[in-house]
Amino acid sequence: MKLAILGTGMAGQTLAGKLADLGHEVRIGTRNVAETMAKTAPGPFGNPPFKSWKEQHPEIPLVTYAEAAAGGEIVFNATSGGASLEALRLAGEGNLGGKILVDIANPLDFSKGMPPSLSVCNTDSLAEQIQRAFPKAKVVKALNTVNALVMVNPKAVAGGDHHLLICGDDASAKSTATEFLKSNFGWKHIIDVGDITAARGTEMILPLWVRLMGALKTPMFNFKIVQ
Amino acid sequence: MKLAILGTGMAGQTLAGKLADLGHEVRIGTRNVAETMAKTAPGPFGNPPFKSWKEQHPEIPLVTYAEAAAGGEIVFNATSGGASLEALRLAGEGNLGGKILVDIANPLDFSKGMPPSLSVCNTDSLAEQIQRAFPKAKVVKALNTVNALVMVNPKAVAGGDHHLLICGDDASAKSTATEFLKSNFGWKHIIDVGDITAARGTEMILPLWVRLMGALKTPMFNFKIVQ
Repeated sequence: MKLAILGTGMAGQTLAGKLADLGHEVRIGTRNVAETMAKTAPGPFGNPPFKSWKEQHPEIPLVTYAEAAAGGEIVFNATSGGASLEALRLAGEGNLGGKILVDIANPLDFSKGMPPSLSVCNTDSLAEQIQRAFPKAKVVKALNTVNALVMVNPKAVAGGDHHLLICGDDASAKSTATEFLKSNFGWKHIIDVGDITAARGTEMILPLWVRLMGALKTPMFNFKIVQ
Repeated sequence: MKLAILGTGMAGQTLAGKLADLGHEVRIGTRNVAETMAKTAPGPFGNPPFKSWKEQHPEIPLVTYAEAAAGGEIVFNATSGGASLEALRLAGEGNLGGKILVDIANPLDFSKGMPPSLSVCNTDSLAEQIQRAFPKAKVVKALNTVNALVMVNPKAVAGGDHHLLICGDDASAKSTATEFLKSNFGWKHIIDVGDITAARGTEMILPLWVRLMGALKTPMFNFKIVQ
């Protein structure tokens, strides 16, 4: 399948690498290819600069947001939350229309220090902002509640016995995304928590997620919903 | 132990009833005793008016917030989030100082319809507002992430194999509260997620909680943190 990953950070790298390994035709998009390749500083979480990762993945082309989105049957927004709307504008409305846009970003605001707050929440969410800005895209919020390594390998945590939460306005898009996440990454338990406004809930879990990471001293955890 | 429950709603009733059954000397506090006893309408979740509950619990005195707090060794804030600060002012700073104040309330705002939003979140929380207003109280945020029936009987969900999240600035108060919740209600797994600012995280889980209740069609669930 032809897939577009927008964003070259840890989440974008992890998604793109895994999906290419699975045999998909993946392109990874960035604002400016030359600038991204020229970066030498490590990422915010100590991950190596994109160029190092790219050298290990010569089969994955680094292209502009627009070039990536144009060729993708499914588009993943793996940009940082504060940059997502602008990145998607650069990807182009026409390249997103009619497609499933899996939004894995969180509107984390680090400007006031750690732990981060959210730049949008409560009565709105990043996913809703994206859906409003690109009404023809079928936005599915998913994967934003777990670490990148867990996104693509849920079995790394408790053998996969935990939950992924997804939401969106388009039932068919949610169904396709659910099947994609199960068959590609091995997710066993996916709960549809409702329309795109439910993203308020799945994004607002992040402040707790960050505290739990501190308490547990690892990002390798997830929530299992028990009854 | 002498315990004060502030609030006569479902949470207050459930906590007071269980703690009295366990042999504690419980008093339940309200703004105006006569008005609370005169109510005939059912509660917002279909629960019977307080008077009906009171008839079944003649051993639990209904008193003013101040009278309840004055006699309590531990004080539970089980008022609705929007009314909590005013209720605690009526309880009296002097009656709260030096005591553990277990804040189980959530700042739910139903004024914009369902699902509710939060009246405070992100860079502040109800628990922090309470701690700032009553600096001599030892505020411990706890129990706000589960339904009232689960609060006092965690075994009703998955045999008790799930997590309670607590936070607060006073380590000794958190330790005492943790022991209290384990020995009285049977909580097995309690995670300390940090100082009182971590209540932003545990309160911001409510929008997701409400969506999950809708998706699962039951309030009898909880989060288990798996690694």
